[in-house]
Amino acid sequence: MHIIDLGVEKDIYEVNRKIANEIKELLDKKGIKAIDFMGSIGSGKTLIIERLIEKIDRRIGVIVGDVTGDDDYKRIKKYGVPVVNINTGKECHLDAHLIQHALEDINLDEIDLLFIENIGNLVCPADFELGTHKRGVVISVTEGDDMVRKHPLIFQISDFIVINKIDLANYMEIDINKILKDIEKIAPKKVFLTDAKSGKGIDELAKWVQS
Amino acid sequence: MHIIDLGVEKDIYEVNRKIANEIKELLDKKGIKAIDFMGSIGSGKTLIIERLIEKIDRRIGVIVGDVTGDDDYKRIKKYGVPVVNINTGKECHLDAHLIQHALEDINLDEIDLLFIENIGNLVCPADFELGTHKRGVVISVTEGDDMVRKHPLIFQISDFIVINKIDLANYMEIDINKILKDIEKIAPKKVFLTDAKSGKGIDELAKWVQS
Repeated sequence: MHIIDLGVEKDIYEVNRKIANEIKELLDKKGIKAIDFMGSIGSGKTLIIERLIEKIDRRIGVIVGDVTGDDDYKRIKKYGVPVVNINTGKECHLDAHLIQHALEDINLDEIDLLFIENIGNLVCPADFELGTHKRGVVISVTEGDDMVRKHPLIFQISDFIVINKIDLANYMEIDINKILKDIEKIAPKKVFLTDAKSGKGIDELAKWVQS
Repeated sequence: MHIIDLGVEKDIYEVNRKIANEIKELLDKKGIKAIDFMGSIGSGKTLIIERLIEKIDRRIGVIVGDVTGDDDYKRIKKYGVPVVNINTGKECHLDAHLIQHALEDINLDEIDLLFIENIGNLVCPADFELGTHKRGVVISVTEGDDMVRKHPLIFQISDFIVINKIDLANYMEIDINKILKDIEKIAPKKVFLTDAKSGKGIDELAKWVQS
């Protein structure tokens, strides 16, 4: 939504950062590593989390954020892992306060890894840390080859970038090298090339997530 | 961003609506019809506007909104139509105030139609009217088949919905009928099926836009 004035804006970020720090302390105390998955709607965040649950032999918990509904929640639920659904209503991002409440619904003694799926867009989530150890953006080649140039901030504050649906690149006449060049220039981060549907590239991502 | 409290939130929407009404009055005085194109990043908003410029024999002006950069602006500029670029920085939507300023840079006596391309996401733009006569959402089959269920509001406040990249539906194993059923249930609006790349469905959309 709208930023009212600098005073209020600063407060919101400060309050969020304070709660994010509390979350990180709690997770550290419990020996849990957490990852915030950001990215556009339809980029494949949920399917990537599903593939990681399949591949990774650790106790995983998931927090799923959506504006409304529980479609993604149901998909994760099928894997029998602890999962909490957050509906943000009109908000375009998760924030630390919401995560703090969601964590009350997960037994933190029973998980080693926490995956958080953020709200699907490349604008709002960037400014709101959730107390995770790593943040990543999932983009899909079907979104075109200009999303890094168009939304530099979210890539710059991330620790890793997943370029998903690479099997569609040729079909859609998308040049992945163009995206990679933008990343190198604008936000030189660890990049994973995946096709979550076929499972391509998931092994490498899973290995990195575990380490 | 975050909604602070109800008082402030109400004010923002009221102020926006007031300016939106002023814009509509101005456009009506000038005999200009305006359309707000909303939709996710990569859904094909820019290409659809390009195709409409090619097809429609009217004097068209365009306002292009992006968080940063001028990629879309340059694409429209090539057509030789009046076009204004708005960069919103961290804001995830255009608002009436920004449009009011952008209109100062267009000679309103020289256009009959105004297309506004909103910021690419399905959450924020919904709440901010821009003084246009119609609002539409462009979605792409590559985003999956659950976006209407996941973001009902933006479809409900729209006058028309464009389902784009339909040529990819089979390849991506997406059932368009599932999307159409959601639309019928959640937001029964005028629907156009297009593939902007090949030009499929653009004639019908162009005809409707002109009428």
